[in-house]
Amino acid sequence: MRYELYYWGEIQGRGEYVRLALEDVGADYIDVARQPGGTDKMMRQMEKGPTPSFAPPYLKAGKLMIGQTANILLYLGEKHGLAPKTAAGRLWTHQLQLTISDFVVEVHDTHHPIAGGLYYEDQKPEAKRRSADFLEHRVPKYLGYFEAVLNANKAGKGRALVGARTTYADLSLFQVVAGMRYAFPQAMRKAERKFPRVVAVHDAVAARPRIRAYVDSPRRIPFNQMGIFRYYPELDAG
Amino acid sequence: MRYELYYWGEIQGRGEYVRLALEDVGADYIDVARQPGGTDKMMRQMEKGPTPSFAPPYLKAGKLMIGQTANILLYLGEKHGLAPKTAAGRLWTHQLQLTISDFVVEVHDTHHPIAGGLYYEDQKPEAKRRSADFLEHRVPKYLGYFEAVLNANKAGKGRALVGARTTYADLSLFQVVAGMRYAFPQAMRKAERKFPRVVAVHDAVAARPRIRAYVDSPRRIPFNQMGIFRYYPELDAG
Repeated sequence: MRYELYYWGEIQGRGEYVRLALEDVGADYIDVARQPGGTDKMMRQMEKGPTPSFAPPYLKAGKLMIGQTANILLYLGEKHGLAPKTAAGRLWTHQLQLTISDFVVEVHDTHHPIAGGLYYEDQKPEAKRRSADFLEHRVPKYLGYFEAVLNANKAGKGRALVGARTTYADLSLFQVVAGMRYAFPQAMRKAERKFPRVVAVHDAVAARPRIRAYVDSPRRIPFNQMGIFRYYPELDAG
Repeated sequence: MRYELYYWGEIQGRGEYVRLALEDVGADYIDVARQPGGTDKMMRQMEKGPTPSFAPPYLKAGKLMIGQTANILLYLGEKHGLAPKTAAGRLWTHQLQLTISDFVVEVHDTHHPIAGGLYYEDQKPEAKRRSADFLEHRVPKYLGYFEAVLNANKAGKGRALVGARTTYADLSLFQVVAGMRYAFPQAMRKAERKFPRVVAVHDAVAARPRIRAYVDSPRRIPFNQMGIFRYYPELDAG
């Protein structure tokens, strides 16, 4: 079966967590909105059928249409061994993913604290205030949480959040570190010293052959100023 | 087995979605932080064990400690018949719940657009701008989405989002309507006219005997100015 991923073709965004999972398991998939006419197809189809999505990404898997990033990963994780086989292990992996989802919302709101529908330029002072708080309080809290989880999971040997094997939560944590380095390079350089295990997961995921091949390929859309992780020097903290 | 729910004892907040599910199935549970010393116990225990939580709520279910609201509902839904039995039906219910989670984040940020750690009084102008955008663009988009889902689900006869039976997503939609009525009474009065099916789900859930008994009991914490849904008249739109 060939999966069909529907997500904006110009950005990594939330779709990237799904792309990383598909790439890591070597799945056969098509990134629909990167094909000619694909974005129109995505928008037309999104609201149709018995399980419409509120927003991209969504994944067509045979007859299933699955929306919400973490939900797609729940499905793929179980199907492709990117999550433990036990019910308890699957819930735990999903819990970590949902916490990453919460973090991603906060990242987005650093440059759009007032409204996603307004330009960044229309909310710059607010973005500065929100980013300062985000870097001072939220980033240490989130990264500290994942650091503690890694520290407690002896089976993972510092390279996996859950058990001994890589899960979709590890792939997502890789993306968080990569994105933070792009968006807040100065603040992240300092923060990384305090969270070596988080960085180690990033490095372990980056070294996985399929992820390395993907990141080096044109299939990986570069970070840019339209995505969730954006680089505005004035929002970074030295 | 007696469940132990860990959530702030003074607010409905995110814990309320779990409370509604536990109440609706008549589960034996204890709301730990509402007992003497319970909040301390919640905070001490939260970061311990093999599956620590980033924040409340979390649920102790036998040996399991499950965090993240939607994840807890995924577990309870399967266990107590508050979700379909099929894998596809469970994914769809969870997708709807995750969309409600996204909405709840946006509700919170109407009064805290800059930082959750600052007082509302320190971000009032920003809260006004964010709330205006929220009411004009986001509320119709979200409620319109759920209205369309209800319209398409003929089996639910306008009273259920998924199939013919009540799921945890319906209980959560009830809470969203109740909360919006408290936080934005004027705007909600107008909005409800456009989303009669959403209101019908609220009413159907409110009429369920266990939910009615719960809402009328002292176990239901009243809406207040510390929770996620807060009433600030200056943020409401007439």
